[in-house]
Formats: sequence, structure tokens, C-alpha cells
Amino acid sequence: MTTSALAQQGHAVRDAAVALAQASDDQRRAVLRHVADRLEQTTDELLAINARELDAYRESGAGRDRLLLTEARVASMASALREIADAPDPLFETLDASTRPNGLRIERLRVPLGVIGVVYENRPNVTSDVAGLCIRSGNAAYLRGSSTALSTNRFIVSLWHEALEKEGLPSAAVSLVEDTSHETATAFMQMTDVLDCLIPRGGPSLIAAMREHARVPYVLDGDGNCHIYVDESADLDQAVRIVRNAKVSRPGVCNAAETVLVHRKVAERFLPALAGAMPEVELRGDGATRELLPGATPATEEDYGREYLDLILAVRVVDSLDEAIAHVARYGTGHSEAIVTENLDNAEQWVKRVDAAAVLVNASTRFIDGGELGLGGEVGISTQKLHARGPMGLRELTCLKWVVRGEGQIR
Amino acid sequence: MTTSALAQQGHAVRDAAVALAQASDDQRRAVLRHVADRLEQTTDELLAINARELDAYRESGAGRDRLLLTEARVASMASALREIADAPDPLFETLDASTRPNGLRIERLRVPLGVIGVVYENRPNVTSDVAGLCIRSGNAAYLRGSSTALSTNRFIVSLWHEALEKEGLPSAAVSLVEDTSHETATAFMQMTDVLDCLIPRGGPSLIAAMREHARVPYVLDGDGNCHIYVDESADLDQAVRIVRNAKVSRPGVCNAAETVLVHRKVAERFLPALAGAMPEVELRGDGATRELLPGATPATEEDYGREYLDLILAVRVVDSLDEAIAHVARYGTGHSEAIVTENLDNAEQWVKRVDAAAVLVNASTRFIDGGELGLGGEVGISTQKLHARGPMGLRELTCLKWVVRGEGQIR
Repeated sequence: MTTSALAQQGHAVRDAAVALAQASDDQRRAVLRHVADRLEQTTDELLAINARELDAYRESGAGRDRLLLTEARVASMASALREIADAPDPLFETLDASTRPNGLRIERLRVPLGVIGVVYENRPNVTSDVAGLCIRSGNAAYLRGSSTALSTNRFIVSLWHEALEKEGLPSAAVSLVEDTSHETATAFMQMTDVLDCLIPRGGPSLIAAMREHARVPYVLDGDGNCHIYVDESADLDQAVRIVRNAKVSRPGVCNAAETVLVHRKVAERFLPALAGAMPEVELRGDGATRELLPGATPATEEDYGREYLDLILAVRVVDSLDEAIAHVARYGTGHSEAIVTENLDNAEQWVKRVDAAAVLVNASTRFIDGGELGLGGEVGISTQKLHARGPMGLRELTCLKWVVRGEGQIR
Repeated sequence: MTTSALAQQGHAVRDAAVALAQASDDQRRAVLRHVADRLEQTTDELLAINARELDAYRESGAGRDRLLLTEARVASMASALREIADAPDPLFETLDASTRPNGLRIERLRVPLGVIGVVYENRPNVTSDVAGLCIRSGNAAYLRGSSTALSTNRFIVSLWHEALEKEGLPSAAVSLVEDTSHETATAFMQMTDVLDCLIPRGGPSLIAAMREHARVPYVLDGDGNCHIYVDESADLDQAVRIVRNAKVSRPGVCNAAETVLVHRKVAERFLPALAGAMPEVELRGDGATRELLPGATPATEEDYGREYLDLILAVRVVDSLDEAIAHVARYGTGHSEAIVTENLDNAEQWVKRVDAAAVLVNASTRFIDGGELGLGGEVGISTQKLHARGPMGLRELTCLKWVVRGEGQIR
């Protein structure tokens, strides 16, 4: 695909977005339900294509797992689409209606963004999930996946084309960039005439490329260096359960905890209990921690700044709530930050003073997820403050248009 | 100012934002009222400083007028601050409160963005207006004005420092980049550790520099190539009044109309009436227009794509509402687009199908302005779709933080 082929495809996606914005709620729901059915009907074919791509995949580890589709994963792609189809229509709600002293009637109308560009690595489920969220919210999805998943993605996109055409909608409303070269990725990030919003879903190198090359406004789905602060008033049994859950239930995801901060007054009781409850986790602690847990690895400055995404947890003993908040301000990435406390005032200080997409009191950071918060899926978790913060669901794929109605008013 | 001096100043602004986010409603209001009083008390001094900068200013025309302060302009800066001070507190509203089946209590809390960076040209009133909107909404304002207005801006910022200190708040909450070199401007746009949001207020070269260099998320205050479509059912007297107002009341602003589209069936009655009503405006028309108005200049393709910001209006005769909508989709910049019609169905088609920050029915495009829409001032008018669309007031300088409260829930 040359740059001009990309431009031509982009033009078709743009036109498709105009049609999608006018599609009815029923049409948009029907597309998702059709794809859900077809994913189930064609699972064997899809898994065979995916198996060939796995054979050709040279690396092992997390990347391989992200590329893998299984019967259960395809089933959950289908059920995710049905859930999004069942969600209430995010479009055409009117907000802030008012009448000005001069008689102008003003409101804001919720409308689709237009064309959403998503750049991602492996994870063929993203192809289906993102297309589902985009079509449900009246947007076109323009997808740039990785070369390793190209055939799998192509097959999934073909199901979308079939469903869109069945509803009389342009198939280009779900389009895949077939050329997965870096040049084309850069050109893609600069398609200001086509894309209204760009969402990167990937590691630090993708984020860096986005910051360097993107000209289209983007929403960063950034790192999650999440903390849990165990306050001096905490229910320590609860604290152990929460930290264990936040670390070990799924260590490779962005809402997993990476550092636990504990108040000095309860460290002596809490830390040995924590270590006992999660023997599979390597603890890396400061001096005070290692006095209590001689088996812990010494924590360096770098440890506190890292998103391990692994069975490793940094630990630090602090003297006060203020010190805990200052630590989070310094090392946090603005994702999800939790306090365990029985002190209401400390809880409210945490809620008000910690600057992050999500703050939690007495709950696992693992709840910061579109499904868990009731958004019915998510296109990513934003760690920036503009447009969307935290999980981006259907509503975050819309914008508000001012509508002004008058009877000839002039200024 | 070296890059490291900028970084040091940035650090102080960042710290100030943390303090501002905790300041009370009363404190934030009091700062604005104090500056308003001081602007009135020091008007003579301010005008003298401004006069020296005007003496040194070599260009004439619009740039000179934008640099100029007068007694009336300073008075309106002060009254704008009082109006913003009187506006309701945009902070700490809670939205979307709900309880999940597992008992987690979820809400979203409106909080400041943090540090707002604004890059602008001349216009010393922006220094005061932007600082007012930022402080009122609990944000720090980090301002990079032009070299031509440096002394004037410095004086205005000194009044803010005085007021912030009086309220026990850090003066760095309103900071001016004193080095107005291009290198520092580029470094400023890349301060991802300091700035949460960047707003450019200036012409196409500033926008281009922003797209090229900015690494901080920005909201574009872009061009306004605004259209008015006169439908076949329009009240033609009303249409003449609206077009005249939208073109001549203030031709140099972004919400002024640049092109009028008229339905063929009413062109013969409408166009001569329009030309008669605005003899000071040069009309540039297509063939059909020039048949009816032999004095009109021929319009080129380029004319339809231009924001004149002058007493020039492009004119085109169209065969249908669809053709008018297609013209706007092709040439519009997504700012403000109006229809004049007595046909309700056509009005609703326009509202739904035209993709712009604002759509208007039977009203002048000049109403798309923060003050006119009741926002109590604006930091700019966004022509992009992410975060804010149209006039950005106090609420657009905030973001939502997820707050999750539990009793030990794990996943």
C-alpha cells in the first residue's frame, strides 16, 4: 500500500463515517449482532487462520499470548459485541438546553466523533472490540494492527464488511490498514483530513512514536504504575486481600498494582502478613521494609518508577498520608491509585489530592476497567486529562455539537 | 531564559497548580476581583507601558490593533474578570453516581486540568482573560505571549502575582515565559511533565508550529470559514439581516461569515437585496451569482476555502440543501454553520448533518462566542472534536476523575 493508496482508503473511510453518523440505532445494533453471530459460526476458520499466524510468529512470551485466539476468546469477543449492542444509544442526547435573554434556544447535541484511528499490536480481539464500540457510537473505525496478526485481522474485518453491507451501510466504516510498514504507520498518524481521533494501544515504543509523529489529536492509553497506600487506620486483613488481588490476579495488565506504600505505624504487622499471603511475588523494598522483611530485594529509585507487569511488587514505608501522596505524585502515571483506610478524613484527602484518572478507597485497583465500571467495554484507558480520563467507553467516542435556534437574531 | 531556566520555572508552575487545585472557591474568586480592582487603579501605568510597546512596534494593521490597550479595553478586562468571578464554581461537581452490583460506589468528580499552557500573539487582554479563567477553575496559567507585548504582559502578570499572594496562593500559578525566542516556544510545547493542555491562539503559522512541535495534548483554536445557507423557504429580509450582521459587524473575527450559499429558486430575489444592503462588501461569486450581480468578482476555488477576515464575501448558488451541505463539508473548517429557513425539516437536516462545532438556524454566526452562549468568557474556540468543541469556558478547563469507594472489594 503506497501513501496514495492509504489516502484513497482514508477518503472512503471518511465518506463512510458520514453515512454512519446518520444510521439508525437499530441499524447500528444489528451490525454488531450480526458480527457476533458470524464470529461464532466461523470460529473454526478463524482459529485456523490464527494458528498459521502463530506458527509464523517467532517470539515467545506475552506477545505470543496476545496474538493467540482460542474458542473461549472468540466466544467472549462475540458476547462483548452483544453487550455493546444492548447498551443504550450514546447518540443524540441533548444537554444543557437553555434560552438566552435574546430568545436564542441553545443546546448541545451528542454526536459521533467521525473516524477513530486505532494503532495496536497483536491482540486480534481489539479488531472486533474497537469496531464494535465505534460502530455502536456511529463512528467509522480505521484500524492499524500489527503485521503478525494481519490475516486474522483481515478475516475479522471481512465479517464486519458483511454485516455493514447487510444493513445497507458502507463497508469502509470498518477498515484495516493492510500495509503494516513503519512509513505507513507514520503517514496514518498524520491523516488530519481523515482521522478525528487516534488511540494508541501498545507499549512505550508505540507511545513514543505517537508523541513524535502524530498530527491527529490522540488519547494516550498510557502506563499504569498504580499504587496502594495502606494507612495507619487500615483494616490490615482487608489490605492484604486488596494488595494480593491487585498484584497477582492479572499482573500483566495496566490496572495491576506495582507499589505498596505502608504507614510506619502498621508496617510491622502488615508487611510480614503481606509477604506470607503472596509467596509467589518478589518484594523490593526500602531499608525500613527490609528490616521487617529481610528476604526482600533492595528497591532502587528506578523500581518505584517502573510498571513491572510481572509478579514483582515495590514496597515503601512512609511516615504519613502526605508522604504517600507525595510519592504517588512523583512516581505515578495518573492511572489508578488506591488507599486502604478506616479514617474517613484520610479517604477524602486521598480522593481530593491524588491526581489520577481514578482514585479508590478500600477496593482493588483492578476495578478500573470499562466493563467493571459499567461502561460496557472500553476502547482503552486514558491516562491523559483531555477529552477522556480513565476507561473510554461509548460516550468517550462522541462529542458535543452546539445547536442554536433563533428567529432572525443578530448581534 | 535558557531551557533549564524554563524547566525550573515549569517546576514552580506545576507545584503552584497542586496548591490551586486545593484553593477554596472564595479564594479563587477573590484573586480575580483583586486583579479587576488593580487593573482599574493602575490603568494609566499600564497604558503608558503599552504605549511604549506600540511605539516600538513596526507593523501596522490588525496586529497593531491587537497590541493596543485603551482605557475602555482595560475596563472591559476588569469587568470580564468580575463576571468570571461571579460565575458558579466549575469544580467538585459529582456526576454519574451509581452503585455497582458488587457494592462499589462510583462517581466522577470534576477537577482542574492542572497547568494550562497558552501560546498567543499580541493581545495583552488574553493575558488577563486566560489567567482569570484558569484561576477561577483551579488551574495554573502558563503563558507564552509575543515579544512585542512582553512589557505589557509582564505588568498584567505582576497584578496577578500580587493578588495570588494576598490570598496565600503561590504566585507561580500565573507565569509568563519571558524568553520569546522560537527555541523556547518549541521547548514550551514539549513540556509534557509540566503542561496538561496547550491552547494556541493565533494564525496559521502558529497552528502549523503546534502541529509540528507540540508533544503536549492541545486544543486547536482554528480557522472559522463559516457559511450561511439561504434556503428556498427562507424569510429573505431576515436572511439579508443575518448575512449582513455575520459579515460586517466584526469581519476580523473567526465567527464572521465568509461564504453565503443561496438556493437557486430564491437567488434572483435574494442576491440583489443582499448586495444593496452591504455596499461596503466585495462579493465574489460563481457564474450564476454574476448573472444576477454583474458587479461581483468571479470566485475561484480558492475563494471558497479562505477565511477572509475582511469585507469580502464569497457567494454561490446551489440547487438543493444537499448541495449546500456538501459544499460546507468540503470547504468548512468545522466552526459555525448557519441555515436561514422556514422549513422545519430542512432546519433539522442541517442540524443533524452538518459537521461543525456549532450549527445555527435563523441566527447570525456571530453568536458562537463564550459570552453570547452564557459561558462567561472563553479561552478560545475549539474547531477540533476531542475534549472541547466550540467556545471553551470554565467547564472546558476541567476534567473528570473517577472515584470508587468500597469496603474491601476484590476482583
